[in-house]
Amino acid sequence: MNVFDSGFMLGDGVWEGLRVHNGKVAFWDDHYERLMEGLAALKIDLGIDRAALTTRLMDTLAANKMTDHVHIRLMVTRGLRSTPYQDPRVIVSPATIVIAPEFKQPDPATAERPLRLQSVATRRGRADVQDPGLNSHSKINCITACIQGIEAGADEAIMLDPQGFVATCNSTHFFIVRKGEVWTSTGDYCLGGITRQKVIDLCRANDIPVFERNFTLRHCYAADEAFTTGTFAGLAPVGTIDGRQIGDGTRGRVVERLQQLYLALINADTA
Amino acid sequence: MNVFDSGFMLGDGVWEGLRVHNGKVAFWDDHYERLMEGLAALKIDLGIDRAALTTRLMDTLAANKMTDHVHIRLMVTRGLRSTPYQDPRVIVSPATIVIAPEFKQPDPATAERPLRLQSVATRRGRADVQDPGLNSHSKINCITACIQGIEAGADEAIMLDPQGFVATCNSTHFFIVRKGEVWTSTGDYCLGGITRQKVIDLCRANDIPVFERNFTLRHCYAADEAFTTGTFAGLAPVGTIDGRQIGDGTRGRVVERLQQLYLALINADTA
Amino acid sequence: MNVFDSGFMLGDGVWEGLRVHNGKVAFWDDHYERLMEGLAALKIDLGIDRAALTTRLMDTLAANKMTDHVHIRLMVTRGLRSTPYQDPRVIVSPATIVIAPEFKQPDPATAERPLRLQSVATRRGRADVQDPGLNSHSKINCITACIQGIEAGADEAIMLDPQGFVATCNSTHFFIVRKGEVWTSTGDYCLGGITRQKVIDLCRANDIPVFERNFTLRHCYAADEAFTTGTFAGLAPVGTIDGRQIGDGTRGRVVERLQQLYLALINADTA
Amino acid sequence: MNVFDSGFMLGDGVWEGLRVHNGKVAFWDDHYERLMEGLAALKIDLGIDRAALTTRLMDTLAANKMTDHVHIRLMVTRGLRSTPYQDPRVIVSPATIVIAPEFKQPDPATAERPLRLQSVATRRGRADVQDPGLNSHSKINCITACIQGIEAGADEAIMLDPQGFVATCNSTHFFIVRKGEVWTSTGDYCLGGITRQKVIDLCRANDIPVFERNFTLRHCYAADEAFTTGTFAGLAPVGTIDGRQIGDGTRGRVVERLQQLYLALINADTA
Amino acid sequence: MNVFDSGFMLGDGVWEGLRVHNGKVAFWDDHYERLMEGLAALKIDLGIDRAALTTRLMDTLAANKMTDHVHIRLMVTRGLRSTPYQDPRVIVSPATIVIAPEFKQPDPATAERPLRLQSVATRRGRADVQDPGLNSHSKINCITACIQGIEAGADEAIMLDPQGFVATCNSTHFFIVRKGEVWTSTGDYCLGGITRQKVIDLCRANDIPVFERNFTLRHCYAADEAFTTGTFAGLAPVGTIDGRQIGDGTRGRVVERLQQLYLALINADTA
Amino acid sequence: MNVFDSGFMLGDGVWEGLRVHNGKVAFWDDHYERLMEGLAALKIDLGIDRAALTTRLMDTLAANKMTDHVHIRLMVTRGLRSTPYQDPRVIVSPATIVIAPEFKQPDPATAERPLRLQSVATRRGRADVQDPGLNSHSKINCITACIQGIEAGADEAIMLDPQGFVATCNSTHFFIVRKGEVWTSTGDYCLGGITRQKVIDLCRANDIPVFERNFTLRHCYAADEAFTTGTFAGLAPVGTIDGRQIGDGTRGRVVERLQQLYLALINADTA
Repeated sequence: MNVFDSGFMLGDGVWEGLRVHNGKVAFWDDHYERLMEGLAALKIDLGIDRAALTTRLMDTLAANKMTDHVHIRLMVTRGLRSTPYQDPRVIVSPATIVIAPEFKQPDPATAERPLRLQSVATRRGRADVQDPGLNSHSKINCITACIQGIEAGADEAIMLDPQGFVATCNSTHFFIVRKGEVWTSTGDYCLGGITRQKVIDLCRANDIPVFERNFTLRHCYAADEAFTTGTFAGLAPVGTIDGRQIGDGTRGRVVERLQQLYLALINADTA
Repeated sequence: MNVFDSGFMLGDGVWEGLRVHNGKVAFWDDHYERLMEGLAALKIDLGIDRAALTTRLMDTLAANKMTDHVHIRLMVTRGLRSTPYQDPRVIVSPATIVIAPEFKQPDPATAERPLRLQSVATRRGRADVQDPGLNSHSKINCITACIQGIEAGADEAIMLDPQGFVATCNSTHFFIVRKGEVWTSTGDYCLGGITRQKVIDLCRANDIPVFERNFTLRHCYAADEAFTTGTFAGLAPVGTIDGRQIGDGTRGRVVERLQQLYLALINADTA
Repeated sequence: MNVFDSGFMLGDGVWEGLRVHNGKVAFWDDHYERLMEGLAALKIDLGIDRAALTTRLMDTLAANKMTDHVHIRLMVTRGLRSTPYQDPRVIVSPATIVIAPEFKQPDPATAERPLRLQSVATRRGRADVQDPGLNSHSKINCITACIQGIEAGADEAIMLDPQGFVATCNSTHFFIVRKGEVWTSTGDYCLGGITRQKVIDLCRANDIPVFERNFTLRHCYAADEAFTTGTFAGLAPVGTIDGRQIGDGTRGRVVERLQQLYLALINADTA
Repeated sequence: MNVFDSGFMLGDGVWEGLRVHNGKVAFWDDHYERLMEGLAALKIDLGIDRAALTTRLMDTLAANKMTDHVHIRLMVTRGLRSTPYQDPRVIVSPATIVIAPEFKQPDPATAERPLRLQSVATRRGRADVQDPGLNSHSKINCITACIQGIEAGADEAIMLDPQGFVATCNSTHFFIVRKGEVWTSTGDYCLGGITRQKVIDLCRANDIPVFERNFTLRHCYAADEAFTTGTFAGLAPVGTIDGRQIGDGTRGRVVERLQQLYLALINADTA
Repeated sequence: MNVFDSGFMLGDGVWEGLRVHNGKVAFWDDHYERLMEGLAALKIDLGIDRAALTTRLMDTLAANKMTDHVHIRLMVTRGLRSTPYQDPRVIVSPATIVIAPEFKQPDPATAERPLRLQSVATRRGRADVQDPGLNSHSKINCITACIQGIEAGADEAIMLDPQGFVATCNSTHFFIVRKGEVWTSTGDYCLGGITRQKVIDLCRANDIPVFERNFTLRHCYAADEAFTTGTFAGLAPVGTIDGRQIGDGTRGRVVERLQQLYLALINADTA
Repeated sequence: MNVFDSGFMLGDGVWEGLRVHNGKVAFWDDHYERLMEGLAALKIDLGIDRAALTTRLMDTLAANKMTDHVHIRLMVTRGLRSTPYQDPRVIVSPATIVIAPEFKQPDPATAERPLRLQSVATRRGRADVQDPGLNSHSKINCITACIQGIEAGADEAIMLDPQGFVATCNSTHFFIVRKGEVWTSTGDYCLGGITRQKVIDLCRANDIPVFERNFTLRHCYAADEAFTTGTFAGLAPVGTIDGRQIGDGTRGRVVERLQQLYLALINADTA
């Protein structure tokens, strides 16, 4: 990677974290669409069409003989700059496309190990500053929250939105369960998480009431269950939030059911 | 540059733009201090001391036989990650230090060519989201503003702060002159610009009243003069803002005087 | 008009833009109700009942022999002030009622001509300052946005709300189309547009999914189609937003369909 | 006044309230400058120069044989519109200039009569919506506050700023006196009041500590004295705020002294 | 009560207002659940289980021979502090539980007597400062609003939320009726009122359209009816808001119907 | 204390923490003035004059034979309520005045023991909700922050203001030292701390540059020293903030000097 790449100098690119099952990228349609939306937001031209991009992904997997337990970081930046200015007119190359695959042996214990979360001082921000729904290379906001959470002894930080409602965790999405209802934030101040959306869809398809709504730390402290979602780890149970034990502190019934449903869904998608 | 570098993946680093005169880095004390503050903000350990860093800069200049009209992009990132997680504990290398020098032949005409500025929709944000005084690799906020300004036909975008006051231009700092007074923003929502500070200091040393204060676009539209400041370009006059001509549309008297004072200062610093 | 009229001195009145078809005011019930709500907001007494107001409108049309392609500006202000104070107790007349009709020959090309929109620095504001749902004579907010949009080379300005979501255009309402869904703002920061509401109603009646929701410029840049609505122009397609081409840059399929449905509706209402 | 005047239709103009003493307009330099700033903000061209405008004022006074106890409302709007659109390109006339003089016999009792103030729900707003420092014809914000204050039984409403600090009264400026210090708001959310500035200048010239700063209703309730300022009424004492008596409820010592100083100043300016 | 009780020193507790009918606590399930949520929010341990708490309530009623027209203030604080520090680790007792019952002879006239409401300067606040859904002993926010309302001559104050929408009254919840629809605030900035929820449930069960949504004072001023709700007073009609008469100023048809439905519900719950 | 006391039920009172040296209340003038301001804010009538209150304090000390190492919690609430309503008109007693003295043997080690601070999610709030400068019995905001800080393993929590700047610690005030300058927050979002003010005054009197200004966590992380202030503990050094070591992690030179100056001041005041 050239140090004059716009992704390195200015965090000027977007990326997708992809999960590969059975030699297929799970939910590739959703990831491709979100990638294209991010490129439009930044006015970056991908330079190749969907078929060509898919081919590159498949070729990379083939060359590495990877079919399962694979995580791909797909990154697209604006390309090389002739000089470190912000102006897009100094770009002197096509978009940079990086496909970085890794084997990630899943740890089955994570499905049951309750996370410790802590709310932190750093907030998710407004879309008129940097759109929190944009999955860019400019992640200082999340990294700052992550560090504060770690210093507080937590596994992951809970970030509030500019109005003080719960928005998301720093690198995962966040759900609570109250009296059989599943709640997550409105989505206005977090990425359009694909696992998040699949969980919402699964709730709807399985008659589990689910709401995207404003809620506060008070609602979390008194929740029956809580969990996070992410592309690779799927759903992970939460055991404590700011020192309050959630439920009995172990994985709850609704989380376990959604984990099963999600596993079935990902298997179906990549069958 | 490795694509697993934290600067590339996550915009997780800080940088300085340095100007070299007479073989010396102008205002190196100020730049070094700002760099260290940025590293503390991100909890990145530079790994070497000031003397070693200075030596690397000087060695780079010497190796390239550069003494004047040189711009250096000095970048420090958190280093390589073993996997693309936000958690700093997956870092597997010392901090990455990049020194990228360029010859930049100054165009004398820029000192007189009036810029066209346009206020844009994108705002500078709050420090509890991403500190606008942090000179990081996560620059999507500024790039978004830059693109909006260019689409509006401007040279540079004026960005407001979260309360709607004028904060800064997207890649330079912004000043207006009204009845002999020089005004710039409070500094709460912009980088701690070194050229900006030098201009303030020069005003004070030369009995030009100068104020860091809240002001609005209304104050700009009716200003007598306006200018921007940046490390390499120094002071540049502004001709129009949102289609209102500033003064007679050419470089004003106060701007010209400050350009002269700044030139003298930089020469003294690097003598 | 007396210069001591409260509408002139203080922008102290409300108005409706009416469209006349077949000698009838389209959607008069809706306009009358919105007018009365605006008068209640300002604590202005219309002074005459609905029947009398309707008669005045009809008499005006008759006197001008106007039946079609007519736009009426119906304005009601607090009346004359004895002195230019804000206090309503210095009002010395009944409310001022102005009925200003114009022939407006529609240009059929506008239905297909794609607009160029630009987001601007000026925001829609909070209801506890000046209710953005109030159609008053105090329109400096919109005019400021309009001027910024024009200076940026656009036909109309996109204004964000105080949280940074897309609110409205400066003088029209704004919609986007994404994967067959029609989205417009929540309505919290724009007029209760009557054409806007009719389009929403038409979507519902015709099984086109429609949502009043928060969305950002990112969603707009990547939309399949976009359009504006207004009393006289009806629905107008959008071709570019901040330099991003929307769809293929021409009128889209959904916009065209809604234009036809709206035309049918207005004809039915004034039949 | 034509109903298609932009001032009437859209509140699209700026104005000054002038006070005439000894046949002269008090502080005309200040008023003229503020007028020109307002016109720049709205991108309105006055069309005539200062000398011509001054002549019109003087001719008006002469024609009406007015020399003292005169208040002039000087209003400048964008001119006539060919149709009620917001776009400034439909303006078809030069700016409209209105000079409306009135005899106003001052009531000497007002200097001593304590006002009753009430804080209201309506706030002063942000400059990126409508600049609160712009003295425009769009005054719905102030009128709404005025009505709320009157309904609460008060003479004038106290308006807070968007952060909840005290900004101003609805049609006058607001000061408190605490332990010999005079405090007024930062000025960020009120008109650049000329009487307000003269009072600040008088304090400075007479060794009365004066501060433009953030303060809250708590500071007001416990103040020793409070007063308002306006072009015509000058300084008026405040007796109660939200039912709390200020001092002993009558005009305080500092207010009285500043009234005397202001009277001397206005006499000197118009001598 | 000890003056070192955390409820007295620091407002550090939560409470419920209970209404007793036929010797039973109306809606005890709902009150108990809300109490437990409040205790979780403050990380207070009640120390006894639900059965024990219920027994205490019943014993108190029995000891006082109270069965009807009884209001109980049930208060739970963190307990005694060894010293007046905020740190919960200086607590030296179990939680303090107070059960304070009163006979309250209802005044049948209140069901018809229209209230006078006034919007006030004091706002409901953000959950990241003090959760407005938490029914704590720290009620200065509401008391400040209450005093402002009383000074304005009103029975109860209308409080706006941080975005300027209508949130609630200072000690009751607030509803308006417009064209047969019942509107109340989103609930994001008020207590989770139990009577409020019962009214919403009753609307749904009786085909009265009901919406929890953003609305402004403008919507209130032009409403057909308005009413407040509270545990003891039930539903009370509103006659004027900021001096605007609501409907004909007397109890409206929808309010009356909901009063009857609510009476039936409370009777059924305590049968 | 009666459970119907307004301080217990509603947190409806104000208090002062007093430190007694040599049988005298240190800085009693300042404390009395702040108490009176708080009472005015809440519209509570103390009921006795300053001399009577001072006598009560002295009598309490005499009765307890206390002269040194004494902390007094002086609390004034609105008094008893006849029923638990917010309305001040149900108060049926004079103000409740509580004087609670304690011996507090100071631990000399605290002057050197570096505190561990952590920024937390809970913010200081706006004065139009609950004035953060009011020292009331409604302290849930601070207690919530305190608990979050403790859960994060810290001694005290750093609270940001609504704009994201550093405001204060939860029960003490906060200062940083940078290049010989002492910085503390603007004071807009914290109590008017008396020790805080004394430290500012001492800086001014001893030519230590001191600024009340906006600053962010970034400024803290890179500070040379940091300390907190409070009535009883005086000045306490800070060793780490969010895991960043401040200076060398021990008490700094400026802190030590200010501790000495403060000790001298308090001795002089109570001599």
